[in-house]
Amino acid sequence: MTTSACSQRNSSGGPAAPSDTATVALRPLPGSGSRLTGGFWARRVAANRAALPVGYQRLVDAGNIGNLRVAAGETDGTAEGASFRDSDVYKWLEATAWEHARDPDEALLDRLRELTRIIATAQREDGYLNSAIQVRGEERYARLWMSHELYCAGHLFQAAVAAARATGETGLLDVATRFADQLAATFGPGRRPELERHPVVEMALVELYRQTGRRRYLELAQYFVDARGHGRATKPGFDPSHYADPAHYADRVPVREARTLEGHAVRAVYFAAGATDVAIETGDAELLAAVRRLYDATRRRKQHVTGAVGSRWDGEAFGDSYELPPDRAYAETCAAIGTLQWAWRLLLATGDAGYADQIELLLYNAILPAVSLEGTDYFYVNTLHRRTGARGDVQRSPAHGRRPWFNCACCPPNVMRTLASLPEYFATGDENGLRIHQYAPAALRAGDLAVKVETEYPWQGRVVVTVREAPDREVELALRVPDWADGSTVDGWPVVAGGYASLRRVFRPGDRIVLEMPMPARLLVADDRVDATRGCVAVARGPLVYAIEQPDQPDGVTLEDIRIDPAAPLRPEHRPDLLDGVTVLNTTGAVAADRPGAPYRPYGGPAPVARPTPVTLIPYYAWANRGPHAMRVWIPATVG
Amino acid sequence: MTTSACSQRNSSGGPAAPSDTATVALRPLPGSGSRLTGGFWARRVAANRAALPVGYQRLVDAGNIGNLRVAAGETDGTAEGASFRDSDVYKWLEATAWEHARDPDEALLDRLRELTRIIATAQREDGYLNSAIQVRGEERYARLWMSHELYCAGHLFQAAVAAARATGETGLLDVATRFADQLAATFGPGRRPELERHPVVEMALVELYRQTGRRRYLELAQYFVDARGHGRATKPGFDPSHYADPAHYADRVPVREARTLEGHAVRAVYFAAGATDVAIETGDAELLAAVRRLYDATRRRKQHVTGAVGSRWDGEAFGDSYELPPDRAYAETCAAIGTLQWAWRLLLATGDAGYADQIELLLYNAILPAVSLEGTDYFYVNTLHRRTGARGDVQRSPAHGRRPWFNCACCPPNVMRTLASLPEYFATGDENGLRIHQYAPAALRAGDLAVKVETEYPWQGRVVVTVREAPDREVELALRVPDWADGSTVDGWPVVAGGYASLRRVFRPGDRIVLEMPMPARLLVADDRVDATRGCVAVARGPLVYAIEQPDQPDGVTLEDIRIDPAAPLRPEHRPDLLDGVTVLNTTGAVAADRPGAPYRPYGGPAPVARPTPVTLIPYYAWANRGPHAMRVWIPATVG
Repeated sequence: MTTSACSQRNSSGGPAAPSDTATVALRPLPGSGSRLTGGFWARRVAANRAALPVGYQRLVDAGNIGNLRVAAGETDGTAEGASFRDSDVYKWLEATAWEHARDPDEALLDRLRELTRIIATAQREDGYLNSAIQVRGEERYARLWMSHELYCAGHLFQAAVAAARATGETGLLDVATRFADQLAATFGPGRRPELERHPVVEMALVELYRQTGRRRYLELAQYFVDARGHGRATKPGFDPSHYADPAHYADRVPVREARTLEGHAVRAVYFAAGATDVAIETGDAELLAAVRRLYDATRRRKQHVTGAVGSRWDGEAFGDSYELPPDRAYAETCAAIGTLQWAWRLLLATGDAGYADQIELLLYNAILPAVSLEGTDYFYVNTLHRRTGARGDVQRSPAHGRRPWFNCACCPPNVMRTLASLPEYFATGDENGLRIHQYAPAALRAGDLAVKVETEYPWQGRVVVTVREAPDREVELALRVPDWADGSTVDGWPVVAGGYASLRRVFRPGDRIVLEMPMPARLLVADDRVDATRGCVAVARGPLVYAIEQPDQPDGVTLEDIRIDPAAPLRPEHRPDLLDGVTVLNTTGAVAADRPGAPYRPYGGPAPVARPTPVTLIPYYAWANRGPHAMRVWIPATVG
Repeated sequence: MTTSACSQRNSSGGPAAPSDTATVALRPLPGSGSRLTGGFWARRVAANRAALPVGYQRLVDAGNIGNLRVAAGETDGTAEGASFRDSDVYKWLEATAWEHARDPDEALLDRLRELTRIIATAQREDGYLNSAIQVRGEERYARLWMSHELYCAGHLFQAAVAAARATGETGLLDVATRFADQLAATFGPGRRPELERHPVVEMALVELYRQTGRRRYLELAQYFVDARGHGRATKPGFDPSHYADPAHYADRVPVREARTLEGHAVRAVYFAAGATDVAIETGDAELLAAVRRLYDATRRRKQHVTGAVGSRWDGEAFGDSYELPPDRAYAETCAAIGTLQWAWRLLLATGDAGYADQIELLLYNAILPAVSLEGTDYFYVNTLHRRTGARGDVQRSPAHGRRPWFNCACCPPNVMRTLASLPEYFATGDENGLRIHQYAPAALRAGDLAVKVETEYPWQGRVVVTVREAPDREVELALRVPDWADGSTVDGWPVVAGGYASLRRVFRPGDRIVLEMPMPARLLVADDRVDATRGCVAVARGPLVYAIEQPDQPDGVTLEDIRIDPAAPLRPEHRPDLLDGVTVLNTTGAVAADRPGAPYRPYGGPAPVARPTPVTLIPYYAWANRGPHAMRVWIPATVG
């Protein structure tokens, strides 16, 4: 049988769409229910669209697509690179599928079909698929602690589900289900006990279940979630590196008992997102409570002010609680995307506005900074501080600016698929009403309720929602009031920040609801257990975290010497000419004068002389678009 | 010919002994001129001595000695591990040689002879030697960017020179010169242009020249020094990691033009030490000025308060200037040892007391912390901050405490050879007099001048030097007054800190010179461009940097919550029972009360409530000898 018969099980056109029987508070909008009509995000999404063909060419150049062709017997050759390379192709396919749904394009669809044909040909008779393992003749599943075979499977499944939901093409879904059946016959109780070191297959299997209705995929995901935490994903035997440390793989403590995320950040958040999917689909309240607790612990103690997670270059890992250095923040792009996926699932599960606040924070300040304004260059690592004259390492260093591609190219196509499906994260709803979580000019529809959203967000805090169609009954229209938006009003009535302003009534076409969110610049300080930012402030305005970058400062002022005066006003100024249009913040700070040469001196003595200077801040996401310059998010204050 | 005929070229019994024609300000004491007679360092050196047989067994267990036996044809087998493993054996041999000279032991000498026999047998007919490359049948010098073939050669040469100087055994020197001749025939102008990625052969070749008088070794070292800085040590072609970055190998800028040390810290300091040796032996004032400038830049901007260098786990690298995080300080033990070797060479070259200050700082606070009080466990990475509940990575993490050995085991035998030759760094002199750089109970002799040194250093600042023998003419006796020792006196006369107090006269046996160095505890702050320590103080007393460790604090006080009150006195208390005998510092600080859960909060608002608490500091070197506990060197202050 083909699987297309099952593809109508849910009506969502986006990622992570709970099944009809899932235990959720909110549901994604039905297919095409969320459409951007202009504004800030539409520009970024358009740049991402333009980057898709470039990305395809980079996958050709890097050999990823060649690997699949060799595995398919189309060409001779060896396999290039590590055995996770197929996953980059799958993520590109997922992006292409979402993008086609957003704005149909036959050329993209042809690419999708061509790659689907190659992938289907490469697939082994019994469903197994990994081009590098196959071409090299390596034993399957023999080195799961490094082979990424189920990681690739997971990204294949996600691409297949996207293709089915977004384009109606089910060829990739057939490949996916054959592979998933092979996995289900190989792993699970009484079968192979080892686990894949890099999670993603958990949430992918749940999505495949949602798309096909085949419960065995959900059961396998459930098994993978509970089997982890006993060292079965960890490299066996002694290895004098983090590869022998179960913490590296989210494999030290079962998720139901865990009190903190640790180890490799992307692995940890992908796994938590998969566990959340399992909790939603199985109605497992204990598991949901566990992942909520983990999210909260991460947010409170292991998240940078930008929303990014992951502090350590070594092992690409979460650090200790409060280990949040701006200057060597690892903050991998994929970890931010995984956190977004996790937060989205928790938002659906709970309806808690705090997760939508997190999605906002992540989109503007942890994911968007990873891509250039042109949409074609990427950060793998997202530092929060680059020093004057900094030189770094070649592959992942922000010191060299964004790069077109990476040897380990997980991040670029991850950005692509996220931006291609972006509007799906903006609202939820069903026949009972509509809940708007993120603000952008958009056309939104939930059941019979259709609205138009107009706003200059994130530069201005006014949002106008105009009803276009409405049913002849009471429905709810809810607007998120962000946690930072003190003093907000809806139609002039004060509303509380950090929740939803909910209107329940019979709406009429032409009804206008106006949300006003004041956007003063805000000075933030960190918990003083965050050693790395002691004595510093961060600046935010609306949803955006700001930064100082060298080109905006007066000649002769070195970025390291700038101090922020917390008493001085921060004046917003919109600059349409600058960085594709940004609102900057202008203030008066101080420049610390030259200090003595000795790095360590006795405590006390006179304070360094400082003179006033103008200081201009830009949104953090826009940095590094003018060459490699010094930048900092956390800025020393003139006074503690 | 054998090389033993040349072994009397200089009379020093220690490492890095300039030739008679070298351009130096100071000369090491002639053989056995420096002997510890008790006290602080004698205990540490005795522990190191006891660890030598343990280290030999670990080299057997890890397969290093097995590799050489296989290469020698003594046993069958494959080669274990990376191709730098021979170097661990050579460093152990060097330690054993110095130790035999310090305190003769036939069992150690037998081991040295046995290993020399194996090594000589393993050596190829033409002089080449690398057990892993040979056993695996890999092509010689084909992958110098990773093979460490010349690195191993360098450590062989250093061991051979040590064996010749310290024991009179020249078997290893014959092996070394044959290999060095092979290198000289292979590399150099008009020969192979590639360079070894990991320096050490430069200083080793100079030492081999000093020991043998063969100028071609000096010339090859000189060539290696000036050939570097043009990308010839860097992996050719594209590699998406630091392996393709010339900065990683001290290979981006020629040493004469370099303005900062960068990249892999051990490589950078070993190379700089080798360049200093070349400058000394060739009288190259320009090169000496260049390495002095580099040392000064490192000291001012890239050195931790403990003297350690290297900030980044990624690439084991120096970071940017002022990138000095206590909590993820890499501070590799070998980098501190390399810095010591470099400082020693600069001290000899210049006579500048600042380098002796650096040697003191490094010995007490960067090298000694790397070894347990028992002498048998080691840190590879020396953090300056371990959080409560910290978990880290397996191999190199200080979170797990010191470890008996490492897969990459460069550090333990490096500590062994340093402590085995320790007294050599304590004084210099010749027939014109004696200069005491480091203080310990010792018997020192330079020419006809012999003295006894008595002191409770580093716990007390009183040093009594008693003349035992003296010539009938005016000679100099100079005592270093450390840079921290304000208010010092010699025989009651005030002397200036940061230099030498020099007495030039006719001494008589029985003459006593008394140096008194006040040792108040000192609070230090860092240049405020060191972001990671803003708002914190470090504490030092005499030559020792102090730290707080959890076991010394009151029950219920979590280390993260401790604040130091800069106005409160720090009272020294000697505790002979604690940590093999230490002087602790007691003070009254504060405990910050519980803070709100949000990691980021608006600037301003009430300060966190704090209550007073007793705080006890221990010398940093002694931490982590009571299990894995929280520790910090940089401590937040109650006031900025």
